[in-house]
Amino acid sequence: MKGWIGKILRVNLTKGEWKSEDLDKSLAEKFIGGRGLGSKILYDEIDPKVDPLSQDNKLVLATGPLTGTSASAAGRYMAITKSPLTGTIACSNSGGHFGAEMKFAGFDMIILEGKSRGPVYLYVEDGKVEIREAKHLWGKTTHEATDKVILETDMDAKVACIGPAGDKQVRFACIINDKHRAAGRSGVGAVMGSKNLKAVAVKGTGSITLADKEAFRKATLDGFQKIEANPVTSKGLPTYGTAILVNIINASGIFPTRNFQESVFEGAEKISGEMIADRILVRNRACFACPIGCGRVVKVTNPKYECFSEGPEYESDWSMGACCGVDNLDAIAKGNYLCDILGLDPISTGVTIACAMELFERGIISSKEVGRPLNFGDADVMVEMVRAIGYREGFGDALAEGSYRMAERFGHPEYSISVKKQEFPAYDGRGAQGMGLQYATSNRGACHVRGYMTSPEILGNPVKLDPFETKDKAQWDKTFQDLTAVVDSSGICLFNTFALGGAEILEYLKAATGVKMDLGELMRTGERIWNLERLFNLRSGLSSKDDTLPERLLREPIPSGPAKGKVVELDKMLPEYYQLRGWDKDGIPTKEKLKELGLE
Amino acid sequence: MKGWIGKILRVNLTKGEWKSEDLDKSLAEKFIGGRGLGSKILYDEIDPKVDPLSQDNKLVLATGPLTGTSASAAGRYMAITKSPLTGTIACSNSGGHFGAEMKFAGFDMIILEGKSRGPVYLYVEDGKVEIREAKHLWGKTTHEATDKVILETDMDAKVACIGPAGDKQVRFACIINDKHRAAGRSGVGAVMGSKNLKAVAVKGTGSITLADKEAFRKATLDGFQKIEANPVTSKGLPTYGTAILVNIINASGIFPTRNFQESVFEGAEKISGEMIADRILVRNRACFACPIGCGRVVKVTNPKYECFSEGPEYESDWSMGACCGVDNLDAIAKGNYLCDILGLDPISTGVTIACAMELFERGIISSKEVGRPLNFGDADVMVEMVRAIGYREGFGDALAEGSYRMAERFGHPEYSISVKKQEFPAYDGRGAQGMGLQYATSNRGACHVRGYMTSPEILGNPVKLDPFETKDKAQWDKTFQDLTAVVDSSGICLFNTFALGGAEILEYLKAATGVKMDLGELMRTGERIWNLERLFNLRSGLSSKDDTLPERLLREPIPSGPAKGKVVELDKMLPEYYQLRGWDKDGIPTKEKLKELGLE
Repeated sequence: MKGWIGKILRVNLTKGEWKSEDLDKSLAEKFIGGRGLGSKILYDEIDPKVDPLSQDNKLVLATGPLTGTSASAAGRYMAITKSPLTGTIACSNSGGHFGAEMKFAGFDMIILEGKSRGPVYLYVEDGKVEIREAKHLWGKTTHEATDKVILETDMDAKVACIGPAGDKQVRFACIINDKHRAAGRSGVGAVMGSKNLKAVAVKGTGSITLADKEAFRKATLDGFQKIEANPVTSKGLPTYGTAILVNIINASGIFPTRNFQESVFEGAEKISGEMIADRILVRNRACFACPIGCGRVVKVTNPKYECFSEGPEYESDWSMGACCGVDNLDAIAKGNYLCDILGLDPISTGVTIACAMELFERGIISSKEVGRPLNFGDADVMVEMVRAIGYREGFGDALAEGSYRMAERFGHPEYSISVKKQEFPAYDGRGAQGMGLQYATSNRGACHVRGYMTSPEILGNPVKLDPFETKDKAQWDKTFQDLTAVVDSSGICLFNTFALGGAEILEYLKAATGVKMDLGELMRTGERIWNLERLFNLRSGLSSKDDTLPERLLREPIPSGPAKGKVVELDKMLPEYYQLRGWDKDGIPTKEKLKELGLE
Repeated sequence: MKGWIGKILRVNLTKGEWKSEDLDKSLAEKFIGGRGLGSKILYDEIDPKVDPLSQDNKLVLATGPLTGTSASAAGRYMAITKSPLTGTIACSNSGGHFGAEMKFAGFDMIILEGKSRGPVYLYVEDGKVEIREAKHLWGKTTHEATDKVILETDMDAKVACIGPAGDKQVRFACIINDKHRAAGRSGVGAVMGSKNLKAVAVKGTGSITLADKEAFRKATLDGFQKIEANPVTSKGLPTYGTAILVNIINASGIFPTRNFQESVFEGAEKISGEMIADRILVRNRACFACPIGCGRVVKVTNPKYECFSEGPEYESDWSMGACCGVDNLDAIAKGNYLCDILGLDPISTGVTIACAMELFERGIISSKEVGRPLNFGDADVMVEMVRAIGYREGFGDALAEGSYRMAERFGHPEYSISVKKQEFPAYDGRGAQGMGLQYATSNRGACHVRGYMTSPEILGNPVKLDPFETKDKAQWDKTFQDLTAVVDSSGICLFNTFALGGAEILEYLKAATGVKMDLGELMRTGERIWNLERLFNLRSGLSSKDDTLPERLLREPIPSGPAKGKVVELDKMLPEYYQLRGWDKDGIPTKEKLKELGLE
């Protein structure tokens, strides 16, 4: 095959067996790879009602046909499973070098089934597979585990692993690869932990065959030139990282503060990307084949929060910063570092702590439960809670269930700022209606990277939309969601889309795989993937009732700032969205739509 | 300091002591860094007449002010010492990640003095230094030594080391860093071996402070855009690597074949960059901050020559290919791999073997000396000789002295195609007069990267010159030599200069260091460095008599092909070159010139 390697590794951890299977070419063309193809396999192979942390769940590590090629930022792999946080289908996407190396090692995908009796790790080298004992790694941080697995396998191996949080099935544990890159959201690391699988190491000497080398070279050159020509990808992200958004989003009045009680943070400047660059940035780091290099290598010398690591990204900067009312950049960097080594999704981590802070300030929980006061703005307690969650120690054990379950336990789930039990990222949908609709309809719960409406609503890319307007937002959301499904499935980084559109991605895919399609068919492929995920969620028991938002976003107007007085007008947009999607009023895809998409 | 870290590490291996010294800012501004500043230090600190392999020689590992920044391909460091091959000043330049990490570890330079009693390696981490015992590493390949040093220090450490060839002081042993990148020429690895220093490992959390961040960002963006816009840097080098030159240089009739007896190789197509891409290329690899990615990861599956490594580059492809009459790409890749792990300069290795092949075919040496027949075109014996040189086994011990000393031993030094005893690279100066003059005048003996005249004479960059013409070549050579001295000293890769000129490099340097100079002063700085190297060589005992070429290039016309009938018309160019340089007829810089350059 071209672009795709053409092989899937299937590992049964219960039996300690593995086999290599051929990738179904027609299925690959229909679902591209990565998120799309991984979701199709999960959909076909598991009962959507399974307990996500039982051995009946599966975990698919999937690359796309562009992963490992020289296309721009083509180093992505995805972890697809049923989420223990949301109960929905989960697909978490990560960069670094692991994904490319997985293909070099001979496989487009690794399907992980069952549950090992004791801790193990997987080593894949050029088509050969070993399941190795990993008792000595259990409980170790992601950095320790990565180093040890490399020592035991090959100095050039690339490792994806879980930390203590994954070992202990924290519901928002992530998978960390290459020490600093995360398949972050929805608890994919907890599923890995539930299978007693500590790590997957890959190493290979293989290469990727392209359908049309010359066309691919042209597409790549064109892609790189457009990335160089675009100010976001050539200036903003390389210079300030994703946290360049802090000041922009704060100035737009949608920078959620103190668990979304406010939307302008008085301490934004102190935690901005500019401040990171000024105070703690050591240098950039780029993922495989990436010309952008948004990764931040930072060093904090303040002994209290001393660390040398990567990040914080915009999201973690916000979640452990503004959302917790913390304006101490050193502490945020430390919290981010802890998420990295413990294997925690920093968004859910920060927002869950923020939720608990609100419960504390409202007197719903007390120092007795927490073990200490838990006020907004307390940098020390924030850092300590991150650590406690990772090890499920003390009150951290309650937080490790996520904000919804934690707040529900204390009788007030309404203070959990989540959709489908997954915590919000760093954009207040009340001041950006398209983003609000996006959160409500995202197939993995609240998420900004299922259809990044911030781009048109705030950044004006590809055109500037009025963020307060609801008109046409359903159509925009649908388009963004479908295109994002394509991007994820192809194996390139979503950040490409600041500079590249569907047309450019289509050129990459055609030249790499030889697939013949036009832009309409490409977008329909994205729509197919979106609908497949929807079908999974419906079969798992979710319904249109879950396509909603927290009370706060629907009924509590933003109290101050540029978006003052706004709530998400979901009622105005959701029916239109369903209609545009070809779904009935209950959000169920019609037979016609499924037939049109070849999903019947 | 800005751009520069401002610290030099001085290690006395005899005493086992080290100290950190301040970098002299005024000296740094006068000689930039890297090659320039390292040469100045060597010039000031050693007697140019010292035995290069004695403890009185020093080895300077030097980065430039741009090394480790986000300027294009800014990952270079240099090894400066007195060469055991040529007796001249040597400066070998390498990419990868070691140079950048050396600065992150806190030092612009490491000056290595004296000689350790037993094998040691150096570990530098954030300004702290350890000299560690290395008996267990002596005799190990560069790959084994690198892995072991990383295991013993830090998983993120970057290592520069020598292989068996350096341990045994093969006169053209190189230093290998990051397993696949080489400070290749002039035997800098033998000097390291003579000091009983197996490896230098560096690791750091430091960063580089820039004088003007915004100006630097602009310069970087401009540099990347010009690299994307240039077909050599955006297409030729990424797609086919440096070996894209094989067909071009062969078609120009200056592709030296069978030890320069001919200049067109009938097997060129079989060893071309296109064939590498087609047959053995697995993927590209880029050095630190490099948007070009000329590195080749290759895999040979033919069991006889099985290997997985990087390269061959154009030079090694040619030296172990055409120059030895070998058209077996698998064997060349294997030979190149052996150079990599044994720590050998592949140019001198191949050309020395080719010289011995000619001696053999002329009956000057026999199977008795060699242990087997040594004919041109015999791929097996070529590969075996590479191995034998690396370990100084059998006839390899004679070859390990380099072609000149080896051929002289058998009474026929005229068959050594070398200048100042250093072997030629892959362009026949007879068919490219400017290159011919360049070889004769290069400060480190025959070398293509002291003033890459192939660019105008063959590739037409920045303008196309008639390669057979001698007129104006002296001026071109001088300009290219001076500019190259600037590029090397700054710490960026020479390949930038396909797309960037002095003006762009000046912008990098001004923004990084805050130095105030115009283009004229920048070029004068290059000239200063060139003249300093010249002074070193003159003091070491070399004279204008050494500014010459092998008999073959001066008096044996090229027998066939596009350059048929040509010899290097050195007499026509050398006096003009001396004059343009402000040197007297004996090639000695005049007092006026030295005063003008601030070298009196």
